[in-house]
Amino acid sequence: MTVANHLPRVEPKVLAAALEALAVRFGNLLVTSRAVREHHGHTTTWLQSQPPDAVFFPQEASDVQDVVRICARHRVPVIAYGTGTSLEGQINAPAGGVSIDFRDMNKVLQVHADDLDCVIQPGVTRKALNEHLRDSGLFFPIDPGADASLGGMASTRASGTNAVRYGTIRENVLALKVVRGDGEIITTGTRAKKSSAGYDLTHLFIGAEGTLGIITELTIRLRGIPETIAAAACSFDSVAGACQATILAIQTGIPVARIELLNAEQVRACNSYSKLSLPETPLLLLEFHGSANEVAEQSKNFGEIARECGGGDFTWTTRPEDRTRLWQARHDAYWAVKALRPGAGVVATDVCVPISRLADCVTDTEDDLKRLKLQSPIVGHVGDGNFHCSLMCDVEDSEEMARGEEFMHRLVERAQSMGGTCTGEHGIGQGKQKYLVGELGGEAIEAMRAIKQALDPQNIFNPGKIIPPL
Amino acid sequence: MTVANHLPRVEPKVLAAALEALAVRFGNLLVTSRAVREHHGHTTTWLQSQPPDAVFFPQEASDVQDVVRICARHRVPVIAYGTGTSLEGQINAPAGGVSIDFRDMNKVLQVHADDLDCVIQPGVTRKALNEHLRDSGLFFPIDPGADASLGGMASTRASGTNAVRYGTIRENVLALKVVRGDGEIITTGTRAKKSSAGYDLTHLFIGAEGTLGIITELTIRLRGIPETIAAAACSFDSVAGACQATILAIQTGIPVARIELLNAEQVRACNSYSKLSLPETPLLLLEFHGSANEVAEQSKNFGEIARECGGGDFTWTTRPEDRTRLWQARHDAYWAVKALRPGAGVVATDVCVPISRLADCVTDTEDDLKRLKLQSPIVGHVGDGNFHCSLMCDVEDSEEMARGEEFMHRLVERAQSMGGTCTGEHGIGQGKQKYLVGELGGEAIEAMRAIKQALDPQNIFNPGKIIPPL
Repeated sequence: MTVANHLPRVEPKVLAAALEALAVRFGNLLVTSRAVREHHGHTTTWLQSQPPDAVFFPQEASDVQDVVRICARHRVPVIAYGTGTSLEGQINAPAGGVSIDFRDMNKVLQVHADDLDCVIQPGVTRKALNEHLRDSGLFFPIDPGADASLGGMASTRASGTNAVRYGTIRENVLALKVVRGDGEIITTGTRAKKSSAGYDLTHLFIGAEGTLGIITELTIRLRGIPETIAAAACSFDSVAGACQATILAIQTGIPVARIELLNAEQVRACNSYSKLSLPETPLLLLEFHGSANEVAEQSKNFGEIARECGGGDFTWTTRPEDRTRLWQARHDAYWAVKALRPGAGVVATDVCVPISRLADCVTDTEDDLKRLKLQSPIVGHVGDGNFHCSLMCDVEDSEEMARGEEFMHRLVERAQSMGGTCTGEHGIGQGKQKYLVGELGGEAIEAMRAIKQALDPQNIFNPGKIIPPL
Repeated sequence: MTVANHLPRVEPKVLAAALEALAVRFGNLLVTSRAVREHHGHTTTWLQSQPPDAVFFPQEASDVQDVVRICARHRVPVIAYGTGTSLEGQINAPAGGVSIDFRDMNKVLQVHADDLDCVIQPGVTRKALNEHLRDSGLFFPIDPGADASLGGMASTRASGTNAVRYGTIRENVLALKVVRGDGEIITTGTRAKKSSAGYDLTHLFIGAEGTLGIITELTIRLRGIPETIAAAACSFDSVAGACQATILAIQTGIPVARIELLNAEQVRACNSYSKLSLPETPLLLLEFHGSANEVAEQSKNFGEIARECGGGDFTWTTRPEDRTRLWQARHDAYWAVKALRPGAGVVATDVCVPISRLADCVTDTEDDLKRLKLQSPIVGHVGDGNFHCSLMCDVEDSEEMARGEEFMHRLVERAQSMGGTCTGEHGIGQGKQKYLVGELGGEAIEAMRAIKQALDPQNIFNPGKIIPPL
C-alpha cells in the first residue's frame, strides 16, 4: 500500500552541506551506507519503505541537541528511531533526513525504589529495563509485545496486554526531557506523582510520534512485582459470551492484570503452530496479580462469572511452568498466523471500541472477512475494547490487496461508528492519517496542526506523520 | 496578597458594545449586577478579588458557542466558572470580561454502565453525579473535598483523597468537547478506553484552567461501587514513621483507596473542634475497597506494616457509622482550622513531592512554621506525596502577612528542591505563576506560551492565568 506523499525532499546541495557538517562534528556516529539507511526506513507493514538519508547514533543528550541544531539550520528532517517495531510507518523518512537511532542511549540513570519511579534514556527497551530492575522487586508493567524502546513506546502511546490493570504508557510517564527545534531541552514535569502546574506537556509529547521534538530522557512509574501471579484460560461458545464475562469482571471490580481474547481462527492457528488441542472456539486467557489469597479469590470469582456467560472449563494455576504453557499460545500468536500461509504478508492493525460494542465489532469483522474472502485471525486486549487483526495478503496480488484495503477501511469505519477509535495503541503514523478527521472532526485536526506549527515551525520533526496533508 | 496584573481592561466603549450584543441575544441569561459579578470574581484565598464585567448562564452548548463568538468579535475575555471553589485565583477577571457560569448546564447526558463511562455537561458536580449514579452500582471516584463541578475539576486537574487508588481527574476523562475562539467545537476523543490517534488534546485541555477554550461536555470513567469499604486509623510517633508505613504499603501493592496524614497540630485542631480524644501525634486515616476478604486482608497487612513503623493501636471497621466517625475529623479539618483562630484568614496551599522526601518536607515545613511564628496545620494525600498547609493569617496584619508570604515561598522552593512540584492539585491560576520557571525551566514556559498563542491568538480565554507575564 502506498501513502500519498506530497513532501518535497531536501535539495541535494543542502542535504550534502548538512551531512558534511554532521560528519565533521560526529565522525563515525553518522552512517550513510545503504544497508543501514534501508534498515531504518523499513516498515513492518505493507506501507512503502522510505529510508532516511543518514542514520545518527547519539551517545548522550548533547549529541541529540547538536544534531537537531545542525539539521534545523539546514532544514533537514530528523526522525527518532527506537527499535523499529512501530506499525504505521512512524519511522519512515518521506522527505529524507536523518534518523536518530537511540540504540546507544540505553542507560537506566536512576532507580528510586521508595518512589516507585526511575529515570532512563529513551533507548532502554522494556525487557532490558525489567532485567535491570529484577533484584529490586520492582517491574515496569507496560508490555506491547515487541521489545520496544521506552522512547518509542512513549512516542506512539503504546500499551498492550497489561493495560487493563496498570494503564497504558500514558498513565506511566511522569516527566520527559525533549529537544526542541533550536536544540534546547524542554523539561515537562518533575518526579512528583501528580501535578497541576501548567499545561500537560508530558502528555502532549506522549503519542506525538516524534513530530514535536525528540525525547532524550523519561521518568517513568514502576510497580512492585506481585507476590503471586495466576494464569487462567476459558473457552466460550461465542465472542459475545467472552466479552460479557469481561464486562462483568470489570464491573464487579476484579482487578484482572491481563484478559486476552483469541477468536476461533486464532485458536486454530495456535493449535496448529504450538501443537495444542484447545477447543477451536473463542478463548479468554487471563492473568491475576496479588497476594496468594487475592489471586485465589479473583480466579474463583472470575470462574463463576465465566460459567454464567457460557464459558467452558475454567482452570487456573500459579505454577510458573503452567502459566508459561498457557500463555505460550498468545505469545506465539503472530508466528502462528505467519505459519498459516507461508510467504504471505501479515499486516497488523488495531482499533478500539467501548467494551459494550466489542462483541458486535469483532463478530461483524469476522463476517466481513468471510464476505471478502480474506483471512485474519483476531486477538484482543478485551478489557480495554482493543483488538488486532492480522490480515494475510499476497502483496504481489493486487486484487487481493484491494480487498485487504477495503477490509481495513471498513474495520476503521465500523469501530468509529461504534464510538471507538481508529487505533488503540499503534498510532497514526502514515497509515491512519486519512481516518483522523472522520474520528475527531476537522476542528481537532486544526488544533493539532496549530500545535505542530507552534512547536515545530520549520517542520523538521518527523514530517509527514500524524497530521493529514491540507 | 496582590498579584502583579499587567493586563489592560477592555475599553469601556468596546465592552459596552459587547454587553449590548450579548443582552440582545441572551436577555436575562446575562447578569451585570454588582453582587453577582462580585460573587464570580471572589477568591477563597488571600488573592485580590477581580470581578468580571458580566456573568452569563448558558443553557446549552450553543449558548457557549455564541457567547464566545460575540466576545471574540469584541476581544472581550471569557472566564469559565464552575462552583468557584478553585484556590489560586482561577476565576478572577484581571482584564474584566464575561464569566460563564455553568450552573444550569448540569445534566448527565448518558450513562453507559457496561462501559463504565458517562457523558455529562460541565456544571454537574461530583456529589450530584454520584447521587445520579447511586442506583446503577457505579460511582465517580475523584473527591477533591469541595463539591466542585466536573468542568472545573478537569480544568484545574483536580484530584483529592482517592487519587492514590483511582488516579486524578487526568486518568478519568476520556474525551472533551471544547469551544474554541471562533465558536466552533473541538472534539478531543471518543468513548474508547484508550487511543493513540494523534496529539492528546484531552490532556492538553485538562489543567489548562480555561485558557485554551471552554469545556462544554465531558466523557468520564466510572467505577463499580466496592462490595466492602473499610476504614482504619493509626497514630504514629513521627511523620517519618507514618510516611514509611505508606511507602511500604504501596511497594507491597496494598491497594489502599485513601491514605491521609494529619500532622500533630491538625489532630489537636480536630480533637478540639470535633470533641475527639485522638493521641496528638501524626495520624494516618485509611480506607480500603474490595470484597470482604480483600478488605480484611488489606487491613491486616497494613496493620503489620504500621506496627513495624512504630504505629500505635491500629483499628479497622467496615460498619458505615464507625467509618463515618473515623473520617469525620478529616472531613472537618478545614473547619477545625478555622475554629483555632476565629476571624483569621485561612490560606490553603499545596505542594507535592516524591514520597521518599515527604517526611523531610513535612518536618522541615513544621520547623519553618515554628521559626516564622506561624500556625498552619498540615493534611496530606500521603500516598501521592501531596500535602496541604492551612496557613492562618490576620489579613490586616501586614507584618504577619509578610511572614506568611515568606513561608509560602519557602514551602514551594523546598518542594521543588526535593524533585517535587509547586502544586499537586490546586493549579497555577494567578498565585503560582512565579514558581513555574523555577520548576520546569524557561523552555517549558515558552512551549506553553506558544501553545496558548496557537490556540487562543486573541488571548480571550481566561487571560492572565497560568502563563507568567513576559
